[in-house]
Amino acid sequence: MFFSETQLIVRYAETDQMGIVHHSHYPVWFEAGRTDFIRKLGLPYSKIEQMGYLLPLIELKCTYKGAARYEDQITVKTMVKELTNTRVAFSYEVYRNSEKDCITYGETYHVWTDRQLKPLNLKKHQPDVFKLLESSLEGRG
Amino acid sequence: MFFSETQLIVRYAETDQMGIVHHSHYPVWFEAGRTDFIRKLGLPYSKIEQMGYLLPLIELKCTYKGAARYEDQITVKTMVKELTNTRVAFSYEVYRNSEKDCITYGETYHVWTDRQLKPLNLKKHQPDVFKLLESSLEGRG
Amino acid sequence: MFFSETQLIVRYAETDQMGIVHHSHYPVWFEAGRTDFIRKLGLPYSKIEQMGYLLPLIELKCTYKGAARYEDQITVKTMVKELTNTRVAFSYEVYRNSEKDCITYGETYHVWTDRQLKPLNLKKHQPDVFKLLESSLEGRG
Amino acid sequence: MFFSETQLIVRYAETDQMGIVHHSHYPVWFEAGRTDFIRKLGLPYSKIEQMGYLLPLIELKCTYKGAARYEDQITVKTMVKELTNTRVAFSYEVYRNSEKDCITYGETYHVWTDRQLKPLNLKKHQPDVFKLLESSLEGRG
Repeated sequence: MFFSETQLIVRYAETDQMGIVHHSHYPVWFEAGRTDFIRKLGLPYSKIEQMGYLLPLIELKCTYKGAARYEDQITVKTMVKELTNTRVAFSYEVYRNSEKDCITYGETYHVWTDRQLKPLNLKKHQPDVFKLLESSLEGRG
Repeated sequence: MFFSETQLIVRYAETDQMGIVHHSHYPVWFEAGRTDFIRKLGLPYSKIEQMGYLLPLIELKCTYKGAARYEDQITVKTMVKELTNTRVAFSYEVYRNSEKDCITYGETYHVWTDRQLKPLNLKKHQPDVFKLLESSLEGRG
Repeated sequence: MFFSETQLIVRYAETDQMGIVHHSHYPVWFEAGRTDFIRKLGLPYSKIEQMGYLLPLIELKCTYKGAARYEDQITVKTMVKELTNTRVAFSYEVYRNSEKDCITYGETYHVWTDRQLKPLNLKKHQPDVFKLLESSLEGRG
Repeated sequence: MFFSETQLIVRYAETDQMGIVHHSHYPVWFEAGRTDFIRKLGLPYSKIEQMGYLLPLIELKCTYKGAARYEDQITVKTMVKELTNTRVAFSYEVYRNSEKDCITYGETYHVWTDRQLKPLNLKKHQPDVFKLLESSLEGRG
């Protein structure tokens, strides 16, 4: 099963007055992980958009177990969680520095649409993109 | 049952290249709603923090049903969803302009802590703040 | 001379680990002020964009004299500073609570473009929009 | 003369409905560059803050010459522009992909303070940190 690991450094602007990363930045990090995942799979998401396909979020879940701080080295581990002809879900584990346990776990659920945000069947319209995502699931136990 | 309604105008900076509000801004709007809710209940959250109590998030759920656009008039309807001695959950409905159906529904789960982010029993440490939150649930069906 | 006053409440997400509003949020508040200014002048900026005209920034200046904190009531005072056929500059004063001195002063310089970001002459293409901006300068000493 | 080069990938959340990076994100990138610069010079800024010294911004200037887009590879070139006993200024050049001309040029002016945001003389309080910054200017023409 294919997953990607994306490295980030915590920005000062991402901290809040609790002295930790504000929770609203994790969805942005998930997105950076998702961008990296799709690019490493072989087809940059910016190219998919240029082809006329968008992938808006329909659901977001995030569990916060620990905190990240300014200048921490962050790793976002991204993988496909579910895949249908019209939808795709990703999961994310966020690690800080060399810690073993993830500090945040997230899931995002998406639907494929055209530029007017009308849902469409990716497998039918772009079988190659669909197969690419499907290939990432190979070897899943 | 008490709820608050908070008015916002969509900022240009909150849009993304899909032409809609980026999903990561809704948790920020939920927080603006939460701030307004607690203030209207009678005790600004900034005062609670000055007393030494923090309310970090441990879980976030967000369902996106529609899109908001630049300059839209947004209403965030906030209420307490669950309350225990140590935790509190809020729910949020986000409406745009004069539409009847909410475009986004969210839930945030929080734990009360001291300044070192150690969990504590709010009912025991700050019974007045606890009662204030509890009072918002009165009349719930 | 016409100016607008826009009210905001400082969001928790806008604070950083210094306990004050992070400097990168002031340009976003300037923009909220600019949006409000143009709308109050009579033509929402979202409508101008729908007509095919964009107003990207080419220069930003910001002087920070004081700090804003979570839940502060903010007022952004916006006005046109300079206007030519192809460019427009705005100035901003940011006040907190009922303080007399502004905590931040800003200027933004913009150029009118089409959707492909090619510069154009607003006075020629949209004389009515140009006159509206010009009218805001009337009575300047 | 010492400068640092910091690599970033444009995040989707950083784009706006013009399809380009919103101007408010450049100050955040400058800050990421500044963090990297100080760390590469030998002393992470997070350590300086832990010693009790803060470096708030008092002025920001930004000139936008070009646009960055989603997934662009960004390089932020950072250096010290001015240094006195109590203040420091940095300059930034932002490049996209392998282009030769910078798309954005920025300057930030800072004052050293204690944790209560009272200004102080860095050279006197922390001569080693001052010398480190000074060393970066060596060899300037």
